[in-house]
Amino acid sequence: MSGGWEVLRRRKLLDRSPWVRVFVEAVRLEDGRTVIDDFYMVETLPFVVIFALTPQRTVPMIEQYRHALKRAVWELPAGIIDSGEAPLDCARRELLEETGLEAGRWESLGDFVVDPNRGQGSAHLYLALDTAPAASPHPGDLQRQTLHFLTLDQLRDHWLSDDCATLASATAIGLGFAHLERLSIDRL
Amino acid sequence: MSGGWEVLRRRKLLDRSPWVRVFVEAVRLEDGRTVIDDFYMVETLPFVVIFALTPQRTVPMIEQYRHALKRAVWELPAGIIDSGEAPLDCARRELLEETGLEAGRWESLGDFVVDPNRGQGSAHLYLALDTAPAASPHPGDLQRQTLHFLTLDQLRDHWLSDDCATLASATAIGLGFAHLERLSIDRL
Repeated sequence: MSGGWEVLRRRKLLDRSPWVRVFVEAVRLEDGRTVIDDFYMVETLPFVVIFALTPQRTVPMIEQYRHALKRAVWELPAGIIDSGEAPLDCARRELLEETGLEAGRWESLGDFVVDPNRGQGSAHLYLALDTAPAASPHPGDLQRQTLHFLTLDQLRDHWLSDDCATLASATAIGLGFAHLERLSIDRL
Repeated sequence: MSGGWEVLRRRKLLDRSPWVRVFVEAVRLEDGRTVIDDFYMVETLPFVVIFALTPQRTVPMIEQYRHALKRAVWELPAGIIDSGEAPLDCARRELLEETGLEAGRWESLGDFVVDPNRGQGSAHLYLALDTAPAASPHPGDLQRQTLHFLTLDQLRDHWLSDDCATLASATAIGLGFAHLERLSIDRL
């Protein structure tokens, strides 16, 4: 596989930092000849998603209204990474804020680009183990959240249903199950 | 769970159709009081991703340079839905173009929003079974693609590795394995 695309020019089209920035690039493709004058790149904020397992072998999920879907959906705890914050620190903070849990053991489930063409943010997924209640949940920067705890069987059913509607949560649920299986702690 | 957000105003900030459009909305949250004057929505094109199982029990993957990652990555076959095209028709077209395969049986792995806050496109994931070669692959709208066939064990290793770097492909791989298990065709 040869080298990548060469960026010949890059111009900012829209800057509503920190929420969204859009750039247009002129790029030369890896064939060394083809030039695209208007390739668009979209920058949005990086975020974390957390698959946490409680001592009762349940997994917290958050129910809240999501504006892109125009309805309430259930998702794993998640949140936007603050400026300068390490992804794992964000995961610890969001898990505590949204569920009141602290975790003694954290495993990475991987880092992902949201859109491999245009960018659109990055997702940092975590598995949180050895959890214990440490505070009351203080969910909701903007809006009401309802905290639920699902058994692993309920979570699997949710994952395979139409109710699982966001890519990042679906990725983290699948990888969380695979890692639990690897760690041999998915069966009682 | 109460109703959703009320859109008080909506204004287009950027229109580079069909690739990207950005809107700013003034929204009233579900508490009926809080108003946010600058909530950003990003529209990009919907796409499909296909987990296809060959008669040899391998899964085709595409290796190609991805500009948001500035490197080549391996992903399941995927592509942007044409205007007016049904998602499943797009999946049939992309599978044939990128791998030369036709499938006798298609199962939905779900429809997902890329970003539950801002939109940023939608992903339609499919499992393609009873596949057979029907044409030569003609991959690459813009760029070189290399077609690989992985065994299910190799695909699982890829899924759990750092090489699996895009959310949509990771979601489809996980759900594809779960559906194969459900269909009891993941074991020889």
